[in-house]
Amino acid sequence: MSNDVPTRTLDLGCTFRYSSLAPTAAVFQVAGQESPTAKILQESWEVTGDLPMHHYRDLYDNPCTRLVLPVGVTTLTYSARATVPDAFDSWDESAAEIAPTELPDEVLVYTLASRYCESDVLAGQAWKKFGHLDPGYHRVQAVNTFVNEWLTYLTGSTTSTVTAMDAFATGRGVCRDFAHLMITFCRALNIPARYVHGYITDMDVPSPGTPMDFHAWTQIWLGDRWWDFDPRWNSPRKGRVIIGTGRDAADVAMVTTYGAPWLQLMTVTAQEAVE
Amino acid sequence: MSNDVPTRTLDLGCTFRYSSLAPTAAVFQVAGQESPTAKILQESWEVTGDLPMHHYRDLYDNPCTRLVLPVGVTTLTYSARATVPDAFDSWDESAAEIAPTELPDEVLVYTLASRYCESDVLAGQAWKKFGHLDPGYHRVQAVNTFVNEWLTYLTGSTTSTVTAMDAFATGRGVCRDFAHLMITFCRALNIPARYVHGYITDMDVPSPGTPMDFHAWTQIWLGDRWWDFDPRWNSPRKGRVIIGTGRDAADVAMVTTYGAPWLQLMTVTAQEAVE
Amino acid sequence: MSNDVPTRTLDLGCTFRYSSLAPTAAVFQVAGQESPTAKILQESWEVTGDLPMHHYRDLYDNPCTRLVLPVGVTTLTYSARATVPDAFDSWDESAAEIAPTELPDEVLVYTLASRYCESDVLAGQAWKKFGHLDPGYHRVQAVNTFVNEWLTYLTGSTTSTVTAMDAFATGRGVCRDFAHLMITFCRALNIPARYVHGYITDMDVPSPGTPMDFHAWTQIWLGDRWWDFDPRWNSPRKGRVIIGTGRDAADVAMVTTYGAPWLQLMTVTAQEAVE
Amino acid sequence: MSNDVPTRTLDLGCTFRYSSLAPTAAVFQVAGQESPTAKILQESWEVTGDLPMHHYRDLYDNPCTRLVLPVGVTTLTYSARATVPDAFDSWDESAAEIAPTELPDEVLVYTLASRYCESDVLAGQAWKKFGHLDPGYHRVQAVNTFVNEWLTYLTGSTTSTVTAMDAFATGRGVCRDFAHLMITFCRALNIPARYVHGYITDMDVPSPGTPMDFHAWTQIWLGDRWWDFDPRWNSPRKGRVIIGTGRDAADVAMVTTYGAPWLQLMTVTAQEAVE
Repeated sequence: MSNDVPTRTLDLGCTFRYSSLAPTAAVFQVAGQESPTAKILQESWEVTGDLPMHHYRDLYDNPCTRLVLPVGVTTLTYSARATVPDAFDSWDESAAEIAPTELPDEVLVYTLASRYCESDVLAGQAWKKFGHLDPGYHRVQAVNTFVNEWLTYLTGSTTSTVTAMDAFATGRGVCRDFAHLMITFCRALNIPARYVHGYITDMDVPSPGTPMDFHAWTQIWLGDRWWDFDPRWNSPRKGRVIIGTGRDAADVAMVTTYGAPWLQLMTVTAQEAVE
Repeated sequence: MSNDVPTRTLDLGCTFRYSSLAPTAAVFQVAGQESPTAKILQESWEVTGDLPMHHYRDLYDNPCTRLVLPVGVTTLTYSARATVPDAFDSWDESAAEIAPTELPDEVLVYTLASRYCESDVLAGQAWKKFGHLDPGYHRVQAVNTFVNEWLTYLTGSTTSTVTAMDAFATGRGVCRDFAHLMITFCRALNIPARYVHGYITDMDVPSPGTPMDFHAWTQIWLGDRWWDFDPRWNSPRKGRVIIGTGRDAADVAMVTTYGAPWLQLMTVTAQEAVE
Repeated sequence: MSNDVPTRTLDLGCTFRYSSLAPTAAVFQVAGQESPTAKILQESWEVTGDLPMHHYRDLYDNPCTRLVLPVGVTTLTYSARATVPDAFDSWDESAAEIAPTELPDEVLVYTLASRYCESDVLAGQAWKKFGHLDPGYHRVQAVNTFVNEWLTYLTGSTTSTVTAMDAFATGRGVCRDFAHLMITFCRALNIPARYVHGYITDMDVPSPGTPMDFHAWTQIWLGDRWWDFDPRWNSPRKGRVIIGTGRDAADVAMVTTYGAPWLQLMTVTAQEAVE
Repeated sequence: MSNDVPTRTLDLGCTFRYSSLAPTAAVFQVAGQESPTAKILQESWEVTGDLPMHHYRDLYDNPCTRLVLPVGVTTLTYSARATVPDAFDSWDESAAEIAPTELPDEVLVYTLASRYCESDVLAGQAWKKFGHLDPGYHRVQAVNTFVNEWLTYLTGSTTSTVTAMDAFATGRGVCRDFAHLMITFCRALNIPARYVHGYITDMDVPSPGTPMDFHAWTQIWLGDRWWDFDPRWNSPRKGRVIIGTGRDAADVAMVTTYGAPWLQLMTVTAQEAVE
């Protein structure tokens, strides 16, 4: 960001409380990442019994934190202070789709089908609906608008095995499904698309009193970089902090446990910092 | 038909040649049915070795023919002469949707989901797309138009396990899939809908030289009767002769064999009779 | 039943309470049917406001009851007294599978695939697992045992769109899924199989205090009649009273509503009558 | 390999001939990789018109080759000479499963579900069938044997959208499906598993005269390394040369084209070198 964009300071974080009957390996993907727009000023972890934590980067270079939940109740809290521009997601109407012949090697993987994004199955639809549009920012925006209108946001309408094709057929979903369908259409059009899991303050919660949650959206490769597109709202938002990016939700689960501990409590915080 | 509608005389029929390694039970649903518009003037069956044939009516009152294919090659030919009105499918723009509270008992079964018509899964879509339209003929016609435009007719794009949901997702199909999707939406809207398998002369074959085939379309209950709707073409046609009606294609396969004889040849005839 | 089989007298019934925002058509399939073993001694219906009820028989000759739920709360209660043999389900180890060439016309429909029973998709499995067994009662019993062992009974593990293939893959289900998988394998083997919805007193409820519920099982055609097979338990039970039979659960829903009234309460009774 | 293992020299390669109507980006994954057992002595590429080729490594460090197919017919040939041990795949019956708490960070991604491997859906099955076995080499071998016996190898039985769950249900597949099902079960058991695409000389072709093809198998993480398991044959083989590894077939397609050029010809070579 150039120096003259004012920034906002955010308090981010989450708490998970698990009850385990056996020692259980767990990987958390909840830490905010530095990005071209977000800076992490400070962050801290707190866990019952000062359990040892191991921080590492996964295949997509996302920060991950491993620990072993012992028998009994364990509470883990992540807290961070970050700055983001006090500005909407940037966009560039002249950003070009890059022909597959010219795409950088490292983004090609984001043109392939993945667990929840059957771009092979929905290819016919993608070309029927968007194939006739001029390539570029406006075509991607048309996909975003289509997905936003096609799906009805319905809490509880999805499960961990629902794919883009399922959401396309039923016409319902949550932010995860909106992102998967957007990604699926873009890939079918040979446009690299990836899944983003993160924090956002600028979330119209369905109704006052609804608890804050994580959010999922997409990044689409246009010109020489990734751009945020968020089919859940179809309008630029403020205050995104990325936790992880990957091919779809299978890659960036907020918690992966190897066993079946009982999640007793989960809370998420994403708000303007109060000085 | 009233007396003053001119009629056309059609020659209908088909030939199947099977090669069996073991005696194989087979049920044929290929005979034309009398209907309010079609009259069967004469019909004949011819089969290798004068095999005994058993004619009966199934659960839906469709004519069926059973026989046992012996070891070796068996050829069966059905031929009929029928008359149909020299007029397009009738329609009535004032025909009303009947509220479920008023539907006749015997058509309620055609509001339920079936093998290829997951009206439960696609209910959300049906109400989003057609729920706001005034009930009646025009709403059903809107469904017909939608299906006609949504699916691309593509020979070879379907298999015997493809359902309405699959066709909806991929956007492709043959007449069977067009009918299944139309039926699925209508049932989701609580409008009784059934599958029709039959002969039609007025078929725009994809290209000259393409062999004649059977056809599938739908019947929808409006007012006090079933009306033909054909999403494959989305316009009234001439010369339909029904072979069978049922909940979907699972009910009216042209041939059901209990075993795996080799179908060596199938031909279908449906043409203006030459005196 | 011959005269010398002692009988038991059962009290059966159920209560449904709905709250409707608009007049809503509803069809109830909850009345016990006479059968070779069960006699209905008396039955009664009670409904809020003495709403008019219309009783009729569906395509499968099952008793159905239609009414229109008015705006507001409606409670419907069905009560019956029935006698059943004080004996386990009958079976006959010498009962033969009937070759498709010899099956009665009217049972052929029960060899076809249906909404929840993709006998076409699972045909390969059926023949691999059971194709080498001698046809007859013991082969059907082997299917029953297989299904009983393959699926883990898990309350809440199913939804209204789960099919036999889904249950086969996940290995979980409730009585409905056990029945669907049994039916699917039998049909794939060309053995007529149908779905039964009914009352049973002899139900090992998962744990004391679990409320009574309806039950689903199967009937398989062997020799010259339908025989009860119940893959949920894999052992003969006592006291079955059939409510409805059909191709699968899509045909015999206990209640079909054309709209979305809120089901506030459902209770089921099936117990030894106390004189 | 230690020095005292005799080696064999192999000639490997393939030829693709495409006809394109427009310039089309294409990525080939056909080059043999060096591995602990295979050495690439020499390799060469030949392409119509000496088109420029760009060689790079993908996210999984697999060698890839990009080029742009021009309008018209393009033929690409890859040839290599490699040495492999003249010995069967190595195995170690004492190799241990590593608890998720101890797995290296970089193999955790191979415990997650992917496009064709719904380890989430089939988890119940995996634990029912293999959960009671002692962890370690023998359990993985039991999975391999199960998959080998469960699936019937059937050329033409699969399509590019068939997943492990589909293959599990139908009981049929080709080497790709065998690998996907093996991977899916292992991941459900928290054992890292990946897909391997490569050359193998020791292929029992279904019948003499069947053309040579690429092969797919799996690698499973035990102890401190990846081990080859090949559910297609369920016995150690000789002469594997890896082309690519990934989460499943979506990651290592032999050719990915961005467009629809017509594949006129494909041949594969993998044989003992003749000096």
